[in-house]
Amino acid sequence: MPATALHLPHTIQWLGDTSGSLRLLDQTRLPTEETYLDAESVEQVHDAIRRLVVRGAPAIGIAAAYGVCVAVGNQPDQARSTALSAIEYLATSRPTAVNLFWALDRMRRVVEATADDRLATQLLSEAIAIHDEDRQMCAAIGRHGAPLLDGCQNVLTHCNAGSLATAELGTALAVIYTAHSNGNPVHVYADETRPLLQGARLTAWELSRSGVDVTVLCDSMAASLMLSGKVDAVIVGADRIAANGDAANKIGTYPLAIMARYHNVPCYVAAPSSTFDLSLPTGQGIPIEQRSAKEVSHPFGAQTVPAGVAVYNPAFDVTPAELITAIVTEQGLIQPVNATTVAKVIRLAAPQS
Amino acid sequence: MPATALHLPHTIQWLGDTSGSLRLLDQTRLPTEETYLDAESVEQVHDAIRRLVVRGAPAIGIAAAYGVCVAVGNQPDQARSTALSAIEYLATSRPTAVNLFWALDRMRRVVEATADDRLATQLLSEAIAIHDEDRQMCAAIGRHGAPLLDGCQNVLTHCNAGSLATAELGTALAVIYTAHSNGNPVHVYADETRPLLQGARLTAWELSRSGVDVTVLCDSMAASLMLSGKVDAVIVGADRIAANGDAANKIGTYPLAIMARYHNVPCYVAAPSSTFDLSLPTGQGIPIEQRSAKEVSHPFGAQTVPAGVAVYNPAFDVTPAELITAIVTEQGLIQPVNATTVAKVIRLAAPQS
Repeated sequence: MPATALHLPHTIQWLGDTSGSLRLLDQTRLPTEETYLDAESVEQVHDAIRRLVVRGAPAIGIAAAYGVCVAVGNQPDQARSTALSAIEYLATSRPTAVNLFWALDRMRRVVEATADDRLATQLLSEAIAIHDEDRQMCAAIGRHGAPLLDGCQNVLTHCNAGSLATAELGTALAVIYTAHSNGNPVHVYADETRPLLQGARLTAWELSRSGVDVTVLCDSMAASLMLSGKVDAVIVGADRIAANGDAANKIGTYPLAIMARYHNVPCYVAAPSSTFDLSLPTGQGIPIEQRSAKEVSHPFGAQTVPAGVAVYNPAFDVTPAELITAIVTEQGLIQPVNATTVAKVIRLAAPQS
Repeated sequence: MPATALHLPHTIQWLGDTSGSLRLLDQTRLPTEETYLDAESVEQVHDAIRRLVVRGAPAIGIAAAYGVCVAVGNQPDQARSTALSAIEYLATSRPTAVNLFWALDRMRRVVEATADDRLATQLLSEAIAIHDEDRQMCAAIGRHGAPLLDGCQNVLTHCNAGSLATAELGTALAVIYTAHSNGNPVHVYADETRPLLQGARLTAWELSRSGVDVTVLCDSMAASLMLSGKVDAVIVGADRIAANGDAANKIGTYPLAIMARYHNVPCYVAAPSSTFDLSLPTGQGIPIEQRSAKEVSHPFGAQTVPAGVAVYNPAFDVTPAELITAIVTEQGLIQPVNATTVAKVIRLAAPQS
């Protein structure tokens, strides 16, 4: 098969030099409009992160790092104090995003270590480095994972672990994009991913825009698809992985893994080594955020649940290692998945450091 | 435990004598408004069936039977020709509803067998009989099934197999209502049931109105609920059951049954004997309707899937008998579920005849 040319969206772009601006694909307008927001002030960057114009842990970190550069570009003669204020301010844009704090810490270390006359240049270099490292991490995940899809015609994914959440190829979708680039044009089934529909709105959008054939289904339809032989592999991302390989990801991943096992379909998790939290022996220690009832009861403003009725809305579930065929990281494959094989591959536990 | 008084909605009511009208709970306004439509012409009954004011196979049959009585009440001196026209006309309200044709056939047999002067009375008697037989069928399912929930605190259901789809107690929900009436106040988890959200809109509404404690969740959240020990049993309805016990039901039932098996949770199907199609040896012969992509891509008018992207939207899936702990029918329990045990209990294959 000849390699397929991909037309990936540009989720995050830096325009100009040290007095440049940050161009963000406005994800709040997807899937109906591809529009870009040029943030020319740190307030605009903060607002874009807060409003989910940019989302996905790695993408948020990259955007925040560039946000410091936007601020310094607007106040070049007060670069140091401006950078420190911007770092404080941007840290308040999303309260629980680990990559956000990690990226801003890297920017702070540059402020502390750099003389005034080189500060703007060094801050931009650091933001570009954060961006590039994430791009390379995605590419390495794709390189390690793509051979897993040899012989697969149809792959199922859940939520969005793609270019819209990262610097370029994504994690789970990096494996799919790289398979395409290598001449293996797998077709993708994308779970819509209730309640927030990241699969329908984001994954289907970025795949179809990039030239990857995609079909959307409701989360409840994956089992009958597997029964009909239409799913050769499941591949998903992860938000946090314990030392034994238990993996927390978007709600709906755990049932997919159970269904995959029942139908003898392999189930892969793709995530950078920064996702591993080796301080947790198993997934039981991963806290599960319960989110607002309104995400379930009022989709798109329409009320679908009667007033006064309780709603169960966990943001994540934990897939036990025994249901995961392999974990794809930028450092290589973990297969089979257990505490010993995780320890061999994962030498680093801090985010992408 | 003392028995719980239930406050069931009145899905279908006949008002008056042979020149009466048909009162229908308007299900298109649920879950936000409890309003009733009084149909005083056969056109209004036809329109109510077509617009899903009344839905659920048994409820449609009952409404259509009363629709013939509405027509005759308006033209008492041309009762025979009016009844025959009404039967023809009402058969066009929903093209694939087996119970609709079955109920109208019963009304036609009454027209053929009855003298003019007794026709209006006999037609109303037949409609009331159809209504009562369904009420009794629901009650018998509840009676046979309720003991299965002894010791259960939490039960999970999918879609709507309740009073809104039948004459009174429903099928799966009859088991739950009867457990409540017997002093076992189980709490119900209701899957929202994408794409059409019958669980959120209808099941949650009728349970909470009736005094049964209910919590709504997205379909993808059932597995983590089971893992946390919060589901003691799964109970669902069925649209068609093969001779070996394989059961077609709303899409999303089959994955629930797989998850239930993985977590050692019993999975029950409740359905009248009329649901069995003994001409089909297994569920593989059950045709699965593919429905409009818009149900998935445009929930509530909002576009959630990019233009041009394909959608997979089967209306039903088939749960294999091996995953069903027991089938509850009005004739008794089928447990374990296989061709031999089905044949012992099911002696009738036509709808409720």
